[in-house]
Amino acid sequence: MGAGPDSARPTATDDAQSLTAGNMEFALERAVDVLARTPGTLRALLLDVGEEWARGTEGPDTFSPFDNIGHLIDGEETDWMPRARIILAQGKNRTFEPYDRFRHRARNAGRTLDSLLDEFARLRAENLRVLASWQLTEKQLDLRGEHPGLGAVTLRQLLSAWVVHDLGHIAQVARVMAKQYRAEVGPWVPYLPVLTDHEVPRS
Amino acid sequence: MGAGPDSARPTATDDAQSLTAGNMEFALERAVDVLARTPGTLRALLLDVGEEWARGTEGPDTFSPFDNIGHLIDGEETDWMPRARIILAQGKNRTFEPYDRFRHRARNAGRTLDSLLDEFARLRAENLRVLASWQLTEKQLDLRGEHPGLGAVTLRQLLSAWVVHDLGHIAQVARVMAKQYRAEVGPWVPYLPVLTDHEVPRS
Repeated sequence: MGAGPDSARPTATDDAQSLTAGNMEFALERAVDVLARTPGTLRALLLDVGEEWARGTEGPDTFSPFDNIGHLIDGEETDWMPRARIILAQGKNRTFEPYDRFRHRARNAGRTLDSLLDEFARLRAENLRVLASWQLTEKQLDLRGEHPGLGAVTLRQLLSAWVVHDLGHIAQVARVMAKQYRAEVGPWVPYLPVLTDHEVPRS
Repeated sequence: MGAGPDSARPTATDDAQSLTAGNMEFALERAVDVLARTPGTLRALLLDVGEEWARGTEGPDTFSPFDNIGHLIDGEETDWMPRARIILAQGKNRTFEPYDRFRHRARNAGRTLDSLLDEFARLRAENLRVLASWQLTEKQLDLRGEHPGLGAVTLRQLLSAWVVHDLGHIAQVARVMAKQYRAEVGPWVPYLPVLTDHEVPRS
């Protein structure tokens, strides 16, 4: 193995190709590309996965995979795009509504995970359609709103945070699923760091 | 929203449906179902994602998304199934070969991420085909081999660790991608815990 069809392409070492963490510049097209991937990624991981994987948590008051999808739906409905609209409007009051991290609990009682995955995909696609229709300029990305806890933030920072928030919840879903097998891996625990991440869950 | 087509189904509160972490019993069919999802999950997240997302790391000597896929390929070729075969054979020497965590670096120089994603999917599908053909019994799942660092392990623990290892690397890929935007989210860092996970990377 290892001699794939592309093995004759120009070669670079890993060192040369590795970038340093945290220095990637925001670019709208690249950010939207990642936002567009999230519903498909989560469907691949979770669609029809069964109740045990869907409902496991990291302990009391932590999110199951089901809760994570509910929380992402809340983000589509109440957080990212409403806040972007507040920034773009540049009205007198530019302070965002606080984000209710537990809105989904009552909202989704009795729902199935698969229906939440479908709903999230629909809401995300619609939000990205609207976002594209705005044809945002660099100048608009520099406009500011007021975060209730963090103070002044730009539209660029809001959209960057949306991307990071998505990726954080993909990581969380995978981590929560992994932890369900903590007892079953026996002596492997120290070789599988995902099992001991967030011993005191922070999200 | 919230009144989806399934909202009339029997309702249970999150509390009632939430399971405690770490207590899920291994079941071959459910484990294989998760193993079968990993290539599709990673393709949804990474196929054609571009060099900047593909090659970013968490700092020196840490894995980029590209490295993660290479490492998973190494697992297909040198780790999980070869070790399962050693256990099932119950020969005189049941000690596993050590797992070279950096085999992929030289192996995949000059490869593209997309070709690695394709190769991983092909190797995983073939391994799961062989695994299914074994029609493992509960008694076989209790058979033991010798891990070079961890001592005696059962086939059940090996297969559980394979699942957890997959999920850990999905979490890692998402986390590494998230960290590329650490500077761009501005004041949002404390609200996005994925950005400060693994400040000293462990994998």
